[in-house]
Amino acid sequence: MCEANAYLKEGEEETLFMESVDVIEPYGNGLKLIDIFGKQKFLRARIKDMTLLNHRILLEPIPNSEEVSHAFSCS
Amino acid sequence: MCEANAYLKEGEEETLFMESVDVIEPYGNGLKLIDIFGKQKFLRARIKDMTLLNHRILLEPIPNSEEVSHAFSCS
Repeated sequence: MCEANAYLKEGEEETLFMESVDVIEPYGNGLKLIDIFGKQKFLRARIKDMTLLNHRILLEPIPNSEEVSHAFSCS
Repeated sequence: MCEANAYLKEGEEETLFMESVDVIEPYGNGLKLIDIFGKQKFLRARIKDMTLLNHRILLEPIPNSEEVSHAFSCS
């Protein structure tokens, strides 16, 4: 099985956000993750790094300040 | 092995961009992909969808117009 674990990097800390992730898609201002059991999680973050052979996805939060510049996007 | 194939979606067409991808990272205005042999490719694209169990990464090009401003990109 080739699912991966998603970690969220906040400052220097990395915390496990979701295990056994299968699907990752952009969703609104962030990402939607779906695990192998079909459970969904949303978060305001982007992919910082991903190594599939290590089953590891590293996410980083999107700062609120970036919301302003996207204020006119059509989503 | 849990590498994936990366496809590039242009319009309705999907073409194989890189096989056996291990690492994906943001790079400049796009992404850097590294395959299991260490070969690197860069492209101006973002992740549209990814299903790890299917070993499939779908990329979509970033329109040039987005470089100027996010304010008017309504495509």
